[in-house]
Amino acid sequence: MPTAAILIIGNEILSGRTREANMHWLSGELKTLGITLRECRIVRDETAEIIDAVNALRQLHDTVFTSGGIGPTHDDITAQSIADAFGTTLHTHPEADRILRQYYADSELTEARMKMAKVPQGATLIPNPVSAAPGFVMENVYVMAGVPRIFQAMVQQIKSQLTTGRVAQSITVITAGREGEIATPLGEIQAQYPHVELGSYPFMKDGALGTNIVLTATDATALEQATQHVEAMLQTQQVDCRRETQ
Amino acid sequence: MPTAAILIIGNEILSGRTREANMHWLSGELKTLGITLRECRIVRDETAEIIDAVNALRQLHDTVFTSGGIGPTHDDITAQSIADAFGTTLHTHPEADRILRQYYADSELTEARMKMAKVPQGATLIPNPVSAAPGFVMENVYVMAGVPRIFQAMVQQIKSQLTTGRVAQSITVITAGREGEIATPLGEIQAQYPHVELGSYPFMKDGALGTNIVLTATDATALEQATQHVEAMLQTQQVDCRRETQ
Repeated sequence: MPTAAILIIGNEILSGRTREANMHWLSGELKTLGITLRECRIVRDETAEIIDAVNALRQLHDTVFTSGGIGPTHDDITAQSIADAFGTTLHTHPEADRILRQYYADSELTEARMKMAKVPQGATLIPNPVSAAPGFVMENVYVMAGVPRIFQAMVQQIKSQLTTGRVAQSITVITAGREGEIATPLGEIQAQYPHVELGSYPFMKDGALGTNIVLTATDATALEQATQHVEAMLQTQQVDCRRETQ
Repeated sequence: MPTAAILIIGNEILSGRTREANMHWLSGELKTLGITLRECRIVRDETAEIIDAVNALRQLHDTVFTSGGIGPTHDDITAQSIADAFGTTLHTHPEADRILRQYYADSELTEARMKMAKVPQGATLIPNPVSAAPGFVMENVYVMAGVPRIFQAMVQQIKSQLTTGRVAQSITVITAGREGEIATPLGEIQAQYPHVELGSYPFMKDGALGTNIVLTATDATALEQATQHVEAMLQTQQVDCRRETQ
């Protein structure tokens, strides 16, 4: 299954000023494409930290998405940092230049705004249907804006370029069995089904404890077999359960 | 200023099943202690990934907090992974053993639950006032539960152990000036005040664009000077502004 990572860039996320929203949304989108989001990093607007994170993630994962830091201000240093990470320099992309000149009136074409036409040598553009200034792709790194509305619009633009995998399905078995009491047999079932991921999440509802057992797999037969195995185990433990399919 | 990082462990966060909440909350708590949250990583329940992330973060930052993976089930592998990261093994901590035996009835003392008494050799405990099973501290790494109510209670227990710094203050200058039009003079002001962090965040309200300029510093005099400088610049640009102090 193809893997992906997201790198979120911005002091405002780590300071708590802004609540991060792109990772959660991206995860859901990737799931429909059979791509697993395997890692997320959030770093500050610091060149060295961005370079280190991008270079680590692009080696580890098939695709890397970045969010934030491509605007016109002094703290928007993502494009330069990506260029540095790839050992290249920025240049004004002719198409980005044209897009910005078309979007802004002549009096609005400040030096700061024209900075948004600069991308690393060799990068291709990601259109921005919301506010014109484009993102860009550098090998397997997709560089996008942090504003959720723009981030989401940019992901829609590049979805068809991604290498997709088999879409995983999930079944949730909801049981009154408490995690600490079903953990051992559940672990034994997990060991028997290496291609089915079994997650266990305790919950409290109306004062009663219980467990959501989430089974995920791309192979529908294995998923069904493992689910039946879990249900049979819970019956042996004499606790109620019901299933929900997603 | 002391620095910190948070490592969030759990497939359910990356899959989008659970929305991460601990980073945002922790950031606010650390701010009141004069500690800067500088980095966040989110990884899956995979031993190698946890080890790599813990070993990277504990070298880079004064304090590392981890969230998740210390329950009784097969996918709770944080304690073992931390032991591996420090090149040591798990042992049953006598005090943790006593706490669990006191909390659970004899019939409830399953092998899976007693796994929660195991911590790396040399670790000290973090009390859990919510559900007994403790977290632990290994050098500068604080290992805590992922459930927000428990995570928060554990942080309250260890707050007094942290090395604190000078608390930063923030002033927000809210202006009708658009980011792309004030970016260049704003960058020039940033260059003059290296100890004041200037962040620029565009917003749209009632159909009109504007910018929140957030100034942050531990030095109140420098903060006030930089803010006045920003206000004077906006006056020169003939755009309205007002300030909010946090």
